[in-house]
Amino acid sequence: MPEKDAAPSETPAAEAGAEGGAAKPEVKEEAAAAAPPQKTMKSVVLTGFGSMKMIKVQQKPEPKLADGEVLIRVKACGMSFPDLMVRQGVIDNPPKTPLILGFECAGEVEAVGENVTDFSVGDRVIALTDFKAWAELVSVSANTVYKIPDNMSFHDGAALLMNYITAYVLLFDLANLRKGQSLLIHSAAGGVGVDIVLDCLCGEDTNRGISILKPMGKYLLYGSSNIVTGETKSFFSFAKSWWQVDKVNPIKLSDDNKCVGGFQLRRLLFRQSQYGYVRNVVDSLLDLYRQGKIHPTIDSVWAFEDVGEGMQKLHDRKNIGKILLDPSKEPVPKTQGKGCEQAEANVENGPGEKSESAVNGE
Amino acid sequence: MPEKDAAPSETPAAEAGAEGGAAKPEVKEEAAAAAPPQKTMKSVVLTGFGSMKMIKVQQKPEPKLADGEVLIRVKACGMSFPDLMVRQGVIDNPPKTPLILGFECAGEVEAVGENVTDFSVGDRVIALTDFKAWAELVSVSANTVYKIPDNMSFHDGAALLMNYITAYVLLFDLANLRKGQSLLIHSAAGGVGVDIVLDCLCGEDTNRGISILKPMGKYLLYGSSNIVTGETKSFFSFAKSWWQVDKVNPIKLSDDNKCVGGFQLRRLLFRQSQYGYVRNVVDSLLDLYRQGKIHPTIDSVWAFEDVGEGMQKLHDRKNIGKILLDPSKEPVPKTQGKGCEQAEANVENGPGEKSESAVNGE
Repeated sequence: MPEKDAAPSETPAAEAGAEGGAAKPEVKEEAAAAAPPQKTMKSVVLTGFGSMKMIKVQQKPEPKLADGEVLIRVKACGMSFPDLMVRQGVIDNPPKTPLILGFECAGEVEAVGENVTDFSVGDRVIALTDFKAWAELVSVSANTVYKIPDNMSFHDGAALLMNYITAYVLLFDLANLRKGQSLLIHSAAGGVGVDIVLDCLCGEDTNRGISILKPMGKYLLYGSSNIVTGETKSFFSFAKSWWQVDKVNPIKLSDDNKCVGGFQLRRLLFRQSQYGYVRNVVDSLLDLYRQGKIHPTIDSVWAFEDVGEGMQKLHDRKNIGKILLDPSKEPVPKTQGKGCEQAEANVENGPGEKSESAVNGE
Repeated sequence: MPEKDAAPSETPAAEAGAEGGAAKPEVKEEAAAAAPPQKTMKSVVLTGFGSMKMIKVQQKPEPKLADGEVLIRVKACGMSFPDLMVRQGVIDNPPKTPLILGFECAGEVEAVGENVTDFSVGDRVIALTDFKAWAELVSVSANTVYKIPDNMSFHDGAALLMNYITAYVLLFDLANLRKGQSLLIHSAAGGVGVDIVLDCLCGEDTNRGISILKPMGKYLLYGSSNIVTGETKSFFSFAKSWWQVDKVNPIKLSDDNKCVGGFQLRRLLFRQSQYGYVRNVVDSLLDLYRQGKIHPTIDSVWAFEDVGEGMQKLHDRKNIGKILLDPSKEPVPKTQGKGCEQAEANVENGPGEKSESAVNGE
């Protein structure tokens, strides 16, 4: 994919046409006729696949609320490896750019669509979304919105959602973790046998990882952070994973008393529609939170304008805990002499350019 | 394998040489010198791989007790598909014949070897053995012997052991069965998706079975009863299973949110030495039995001399519940005009021939 397949200047109109039905000539009559002055919101937009430079903070039309959806005023957004993979275009069936990034957020219900019975305006919620979560407002199917306890901050909610669901499913449904078992969180293991391997790297080490499993061991793939390597090139590492990982014979697995499987949360929700399964997991997690048994660790919270810096930290695996975005947060003032790499990541937002960046989409 | 690679007449001496050190000329000096008149016991012997005819009831030397072993006076023996597979020679690394059949029994401890601290003479126990359980006496590593509650009959004990361990491990460790989940016990499914498939058939239906799994579904192989087809020929169905079952790509499994694995109890114990894991499972099962939550169903109990009839019933899948052997049970009197097939299965034991059969090994 070329880095600049969508120039920033043509972005807003196209997006508005797709989402708000305002500006494009081929828009339907009724929408055009009814259109009041379009309200906009700040959002983190991927303008094309590639490096950090492809991410811009832009004004976008506020989302419309469809049947069964909940409109959320976003207070915190979670960031994780799938966001990096989307930026690089290394997911299958990549969506068209420009798009608003983001798969999870916490916030307050601002409006509820028809046929939504479980939520009311003012509810404090967390939500899993199929893109579009990194904005001041997002409209989400009620199927993937979850109320949070009063004592849970929005930051905690956004930090807990995706990562804790994955951990919970892997350990307590798939691996069925028991007292005394050994657990290896990636696959680059030594020669010792382990009971459970959680592999998010998924490459040539995967074959070795399966081979070092103890009898009754379980090898579980999740995500594929190995694919996120350099800044841009990564289709090849994606393909490489497929070639490097050997197919396994179910009969041999059985003879060895081993299990192999995996978990991909976004697929489970947005392709396989397993809302009930995920809701049960979220309920369990919120119970654990209420009981004080789990508490997410937050590495850092960034303004939308500083999304590049947060993303770079995640890319470099320098975070300890969750990286969050907060739409209400002021961007960190930039010093003139700042290192080039970080400045690049800080999307089009040099010193004194804040207003330009903020209205970039208008 | 030819059906008659070991003629019955040469069997006893060979076996005695291997086990008791008594009759063969090449036996060691000390053993020959110390040998008292060899005590014998009744046992169910496979004289060569093939049809029911290869099974004989013979007198064999009583087993010697080694360090770490427990000598058990057998009161009941369990029969299951692995016994049929052994008879047909369709296990990998088949042992040499003649051999005493049987993988599980219940009985009373008659003697304990050195370094055995957990058992005493008179203990009521169940045991998993690597062959040799279908005899009046068996010597077993204490690693795979388990005390049973006072209120558990030997028949219940032998009926519960292997089948319940397998069911328990598959459902509660590997499949992690939860309320409301659908479960399919073989793989010849319709088109509907299921949460869990337990597949003991393992053939071309396995591929289809994996494909109809629901998201978060688990496909588990155990045993391979598909291999037990006709009376004798079965190497080809064994090989066929390997060719028919497609290898699976771990990445695709993960993308589909599925797991594939399996469980082979005998391998887990006798090749992988996972005694502690199995003991924990047996403890859980005996607790459930004590609480009245499980109670094994017994289909029928047979004398050693009628082993062929029991085996035929299992082969024909006509049993409902466990098929047991009981060394103290008198054989069913045979009528002269009995159907040929059943009479053949009833090992060399026509009316009035009992004494010949019983001393067949002397």
